[in-house]
Amino acid sequence: MADGEYKPGLEGVPATRSNISYVDGQAGILEYRGIAIEELTAHSSFLETAHLLIYDHLPLVKDLEEFTEAVREHRRVKYRIIDMIKSFPESGHPMDALQTCVAALGMFYPIQEFSHDYVFGTVTRLLAKVPTVVAAFHQMRQGNDPIPPDDSLDRPSNFLYMLSGKIPDPKLARIFDQCLILHAEHTVNASTFAMLVTASTLANPYSAIASAIGTLSGQLHGGANEQVMVMLRQIGSVGNVRPYIEERLAKKQKIMGMGHRIYKVKDPRAIILQKIVEELFETFGHNKYYDIALEVEKVCDELLGSKEIYPNVDFYSGLIYDKLGIPEELFTPVFAIARIAGWLAHWREQLSDNRLFRPTQVYTGLRNQPYIHSDRRHPNSSHELH
Amino acid sequence: MADGEYKPGLEGVPATRSNISYVDGQAGILEYRGIAIEELTAHSSFLETAHLLIYDHLPLVKDLEEFTEAVREHRRVKYRIIDMIKSFPESGHPMDALQTCVAALGMFYPIQEFSHDYVFGTVTRLLAKVPTVVAAFHQMRQGNDPIPPDDSLDRPSNFLYMLSGKIPDPKLARIFDQCLILHAEHTVNASTFAMLVTASTLANPYSAIASAIGTLSGQLHGGANEQVMVMLRQIGSVGNVRPYIEERLAKKQKIMGMGHRIYKVKDPRAIILQKIVEELFETFGHNKYYDIALEVEKVCDELLGSKEIYPNVDFYSGLIYDKLGIPEELFTPVFAIARIAGWLAHWREQLSDNRLFRPTQVYTGLRNQPYIHSDRRHPNSSHELH
Repeated sequence: MADGEYKPGLEGVPATRSNISYVDGQAGILEYRGIAIEELTAHSSFLETAHLLIYDHLPLVKDLEEFTEAVREHRRVKYRIIDMIKSFPESGHPMDALQTCVAALGMFYPIQEFSHDYVFGTVTRLLAKVPTVVAAFHQMRQGNDPIPPDDSLDRPSNFLYMLSGKIPDPKLARIFDQCLILHAEHTVNASTFAMLVTASTLANPYSAIASAIGTLSGQLHGGANEQVMVMLRQIGSVGNVRPYIEERLAKKQKIMGMGHRIYKVKDPRAIILQKIVEELFETFGHNKYYDIALEVEKVCDELLGSKEIYPNVDFYSGLIYDKLGIPEELFTPVFAIARIAGWLAHWREQLSDNRLFRPTQVYTGLRNQPYIHSDRRHPNSSHELH
Repeated sequence: MADGEYKPGLEGVPATRSNISYVDGQAGILEYRGIAIEELTAHSSFLETAHLLIYDHLPLVKDLEEFTEAVREHRRVKYRIIDMIKSFPESGHPMDALQTCVAALGMFYPIQEFSHDYVFGTVTRLLAKVPTVVAAFHQMRQGNDPIPPDDSLDRPSNFLYMLSGKIPDPKLARIFDQCLILHAEHTVNASTFAMLVTASTLANPYSAIASAIGTLSGQLHGGANEQVMVMLRQIGSVGNVRPYIEERLAKKQKIMGMGHRIYKVKDPRAIILQKIVEELFETFGHNKYYDIALEVEKVCDELLGSKEIYPNVDFYSGLIYDKLGIPEELFTPVFAIARIAGWLAHWREQLSDNRLFRPTQVYTGLRNQPYIHSDRRHPNSSHELH
C-alpha cells in the first residue's frame, strides 16, 4: 500500500456503508433516515426517534407503545450494579463510571445468536439502564442513596427526577427530550466508529457500547461540551468576551464549542438549540451566561467567520443543561444518554452485514535488526528512557 | 467520496503510520521494532520485549531493572477494585470482568498532561494490574479470596501462582513468558485499532485499553483461542479427526485455529509455538490433545493447503495454556495480558502525533423524507418491527 494513500484520522475515507443518517456540511443539513432533524425536534420524541434510527421507520402507535413499555420495564438495574458503584471513588469521572457499568452489564447478559428478540432486548435494556446508572453514580458520589426510577414518569422527566429528586416542569422535560433528539446520531463519529470496530469482532454489545462511551469521553469528542460552560463561567461578563477571545486567538488556542470538522456553515443542531435556548430563558427567566454566549458568537463570527468556524452542537447545549440544573460533569454522560440510540442503530446495521475491521499500516520503522544481548548494549547506542 | 473506494472492514486501507511491528504475510515474517520474533522468543523476556515495543529500544540493564521494579510495585490493586469484583456475577465472562476493571481504573488515575512520568506510570501500572485482576476474578468467582501477588516471584511465575496458589516449575514459567512475547503485538489488529480510535479523542488510557479489551473479546478476534481447545475436546481422539474435519468442511464451517487474514503461509508464531509444545510435552508428559492437534494440522494441510489456510497463533497456544493448568475461559484474558504491551506501544505512538479518527461513510439511505404523524402511519407503509 503506497504511503501516499494514508489519510491521518481516516479523514475522507469511507469506513462503512450506512443508511442511518445523512449530513451535508456545506448546506448545513442533518437527516435521520431521511427525515430532517428540524422536523423530528418539532414533532417527535427521543424514544420515537430512537426507534426510527434503530428500526429504520417511524413506529405505528402500538409499536411505539410496546417499545416505550419495554424501555420503561428495563429502567431498574440489578442490586449488584448498585453495589459495584458503591466501590467507585467519589472523585471518579462520571464517564469512566458509565463505561465501567456498561461493560459490567455484559456479565449479566451474555451474547446470543443475533435475532429479533435479542436485538430488541439489548436495545431496550441499554436505552433504559444508561440514564439510571448515570443518575445513580451522581447521587451516590454525594453520599446519597440512588433515587429509584419512577414508572409514572416519561423518560426525560424520570431522568431529571432521578438526578434531583424533583419532578420537572413538563416544558423543561420536553426541552431536554429535544436536546436528546439532536444528539442522538451523527454518522461515523469517533465513538460510533470505535463501537463498530468492537462489534465487528462479534464482541457482546455491552462491550461495544462501552468502547463508544470511552471514546465519547475524550475532550476532542463528547468531552468538549463540558468545557463550553467552564469557558462561559471563566469569562464571567459580556464585557470580558472580546479580550478573552482575542487573547486565546493570539495564543492560537481553540474557542470551545466553535467549529466542526464536518460543518462549514453553522451546525444545524446549533441553530435549533439556539431557538430552544431563547424559548427556555424567556419562559423560565434570564441568565447572564446566555448573554455571554451570544456575545461569544458575535465576536467569533467577526473574527473567525471567514475561516468557516461557527458554533457547534456543544455551544448551546451546555447552556440548556446548566439551566435544567444538570452539573457540568454530567454533560458528556447526557450526550451518551442520547447517542446510545445512534450507537445501537449502527450496531444493528453492522451485524446485519458484518466484516471484521482490520486495516493496514504504513510501516516507517527499521527492518532486520539483531537482538543485542544486554551485556553488549551501550547507552549511546540506545535512546533515552523516554 | 465515490462508492467504489469503500473497502469493507477497511481491508488494505492504511489507518496509521507506525514503526512498532512489521509483518509479511507472504514470507511469514513478524518483527517487533525490526527484531524477529524468533530472536526475541529465544533470548528476551516478556517485560524486556514490552519495553522494546513501548520505548522503541532494548533497555540497558539498569533501565530494565527500573522498569521491572516499577511493574512489580504496581501489582497490587486498590481494595475498592476487589470490592467491585465481589459484586460481579460468578457466571460473568472473565473478559467482561477485565474490561470492567480496566475502565474502573480510570476513575482512580485521571488523565494528565502527556509527559514522560505520566506515560511511565500508566504503562507500568497497566502491565502490572491486568494480570492481578484476571487472577482475582478467577479466584473470587469460585468463592475464594484473591491470592495477593508474591513480590519474590517474577512476572510469569507470579501470575501462575495467583491463578493456582502453586509456584510453577521455572521451565513452565519460561514457556508461559515465551507465549506472552509471541502475543504481545501484531500491527493494527481490531483491538489495537479500537484503542487508537478511543485514544485519538484524548480519552484517558484506561478507557482506551478498555475498548481494546472489549474488542479482543469477540470470537472473530481474541475469543477464537478459547474455541480451539473446545474443538480438540469435542474431537476426543486421533481417529475422529478426519471425519470431524470433513463434516465441517462439507457444511462450509470454519476449523478453529486455522487461517489468518494476513498470513498466506504458516503463521511464524505457530511455528515457534509448535516447537515449544514439543519441548513442553517431552519434558512434562504427553497429552492426547497434542496428538489430535497434529492430526488436525495434517488433515487440514491435505484438504485446505492449496487454499493458503494454515494453523494460526491460536492453534497451539490453547494446548500450551491447557497444559499449564490455565482454564479455557482465561485463554483470551491471557492474550490480553500479553497484548497490553502492543496496545500501550500504539497508545504512546498515537499520542505523539495525534489526529482524531473521523472517517466518512457511503450513504445508501433515503433523502428528504417527511415526518408522518402517528395517526397517519399505516402498517403497509412501514416495515415490520424487526
